[in-house]
Amino acid sequence: MQLKRPEHDINLNPLQRGGILTKEARDALVEFADGYSVCDFCPGRVDLIKTPNIKNFIHEELPEFLGCDEVRTTNGAREAKFAVMHSLAKKGAWVIIDGNAHYSTIVAAERAGLKIAKVERSGEPKYKINPENYASKIEEIRKKEKIVLSLVTYPDGNYGNLPDAKKIVNISHAYDIPVLMNCAYSIGRMPIKMKKYKADFIVGSGQKSMASSGPIGILGVSKEWKDTIFRTSKYYPKKELELLGCTTRGASIITLMASFPKVKERVERWDEEVNKAREFSKKMEELGIKQLGEKPHHHDLMFFDSEVLYEISKKHKKRGFFLYQELKKKGIIGIKPGLTRNFKLSTYQIPKKKLDYVIDSFQEIIEKNK
Amino acid sequence: MQLKRPEHDINLNPLQRGGILTKEARDALVEFADGYSVCDFCPGRVDLIKTPNIKNFIHEELPEFLGCDEVRTTNGAREAKFAVMHSLAKKGAWVIIDGNAHYSTIVAAERAGLKIAKVERSGEPKYKINPENYASKIEEIRKKEKIVLSLVTYPDGNYGNLPDAKKIVNISHAYDIPVLMNCAYSIGRMPIKMKKYKADFIVGSGQKSMASSGPIGILGVSKEWKDTIFRTSKYYPKKELELLGCTTRGASIITLMASFPKVKERVERWDEEVNKAREFSKKMEELGIKQLGEKPHHHDLMFFDSEVLYEISKKHKKRGFFLYQELKKKGIIGIKPGLTRNFKLSTYQIPKKKLDYVIDSFQEIIEKNK
Repeated sequence: MQLKRPEHDINLNPLQRGGILTKEARDALVEFADGYSVCDFCPGRVDLIKTPNIKNFIHEELPEFLGCDEVRTTNGAREAKFAVMHSLAKKGAWVIIDGNAHYSTIVAAERAGLKIAKVERSGEPKYKINPENYASKIEEIRKKEKIVLSLVTYPDGNYGNLPDAKKIVNISHAYDIPVLMNCAYSIGRMPIKMKKYKADFIVGSGQKSMASSGPIGILGVSKEWKDTIFRTSKYYPKKELELLGCTTRGASIITLMASFPKVKERVERWDEEVNKAREFSKKMEELGIKQLGEKPHHHDLMFFDSEVLYEISKKHKKRGFFLYQELKKKGIIGIKPGLTRNFKLSTYQIPKKKLDYVIDSFQEIIEKNK
Repeated sequence: MQLKRPEHDINLNPLQRGGILTKEARDALVEFADGYSVCDFCPGRVDLIKTPNIKNFIHEELPEFLGCDEVRTTNGAREAKFAVMHSLAKKGAWVIIDGNAHYSTIVAAERAGLKIAKVERSGEPKYKINPENYASKIEEIRKKEKIVLSLVTYPDGNYGNLPDAKKIVNISHAYDIPVLMNCAYSIGRMPIKMKKYKADFIVGSGQKSMASSGPIGILGVSKEWKDTIFRTSKYYPKKELELLGCTTRGASIITLMASFPKVKERVERWDEEVNKAREFSKKMEELGIKQLGEKPHHHDLMFFDSEVLYEISKKHKKRGFFLYQELKKKGIIGIKPGLTRNFKLSTYQIPKKKLDYVIDSFQEIIEKNK
């Protein structure tokens, strides 16, 4: 069966930007393509394999990179959030999440049987999370029932906003509530050390931001929590329950490892990415396309509000699909078919020249159809 | 970072035999290597994507192949077992499992908070599961507490035994207990239709037996249970809780799909594999190496008991490691370093000529060291 990915030149989908493999990962992928290829020398658990040296990667390199005490890979960021929630869940207990949380956070909490309290965000245009609202939400819930976890999305996947995580941790800790930082869109893009925020759990995504083949996530925890989250089977003392013994094998872990040296380098150049994003935002605004979320922006993921494109769609014979189709003709994909008024995109790792081409393309499309 | 897999000519590890990629899968892997590569045209859930046509694969081809009503891919066979157990779990409830169950079955049950009752197997040399023992175990447990699931490993990963699953289903159903068949070592190797056994859930492994890059599993269910297992979020009506919305993306799902036509063909040639295994077993026995488990054997996964190699290891300066090292010199890997007396191996998809070479190698090693 021949399977081909549709061709494109520029993909603006935020999901796709951080997961493009490095050359090293492509080579390793082919080398370790077979199912259990990394398990030739398994000592009983994937994170303890020394050939290839997964052990050193998971137990030395990743904790240092994340500034936390213990790390494990998981089957994805959502699976890492679920592992923490499932470990902490008690009957009738609650999790406090930010109003910009990803749907998978909510689904993970539901699956773990937790009740969900959402911290309100501010309205248009910034959709910001005010840390003080964690305090009021915690006060409200704790009167009735137990809270086992606070969660902050850093940044969120809609607006690319980076809330004051340190303050959220301080507030939650004052109530003895541990905090999970969902960094699926930050770990591997920008420098993140869990200790800096004094958080208890940190979650990243290989395929979202660490140049890996999916699906793979990483879960970092503080030493205070490691025995809770990584508790072992009473029948198999080496096997960790939340990981069902072993998690990601084969292509996923090997691409994460192979890309890692380059990923470590690229987070050091984060400033350049932020500058590119800001410049792009500025030029979009000059076309009458408004950037929502924090401004000046601190991340490559941006949400736009475009009355001008929406007005065109009302009269265009292709309706809302015209934008997708016009962009596609120019080799640009990643904005969802049908959207014109509100859409998100990412400028991550797109060269400045190509971003200029994207801007020129928007301008042409507007002028041609207005 | 350059990562190389150690070279070898023949790998006898049962884990490795069924997960070797087809050429089609290798091509697709390179094409869809990037993190979210299959999600370019996502309509909100991975199993509904039409480009590439994952929807048809998961909702048409796999149910037909497995003889069941609904299928989803999961992050692995263990994750599929956990999804079922977690959906059915009640406080204080039990799962009945066969005495040859894989450790991941036990760990999944523990993680789901289920108590575990093991159906005894017969002793050496056959280690068989007698279906009648399910009845007595169920009778014993149901007096005290609720049983939510029976599980049978088909075949087990130590002896390659294939118990009478149909009878186990009949017995369990007589007590209104649904049955899960763990077919990680059979789906993709031998023809398996869930309906033939009247089971309720069936679990397979992409990397173990379906020529896929790991990790990916498949979970088939009957229509009676689909709304229980694939129940959706109350906040996001499209997202299935046990799958946390989406499961395997990228390399894993694309290799499973790309290999599938060849996998369908190979299960039709299962008889040849059984014959090869039986012949191999016979020749090993002629060398004084006894095959345990069912005889005549019905699967490529076999367990051997070798007094002759064990006796050598007692006097050899490399002790138990001599066998691994001698085989490795001959390009044969897959028997765990240190083992001589008891070891398992698989003949799956190894050409007859190479199997003869393996037999000759064992003979030479015995003669040289005796």
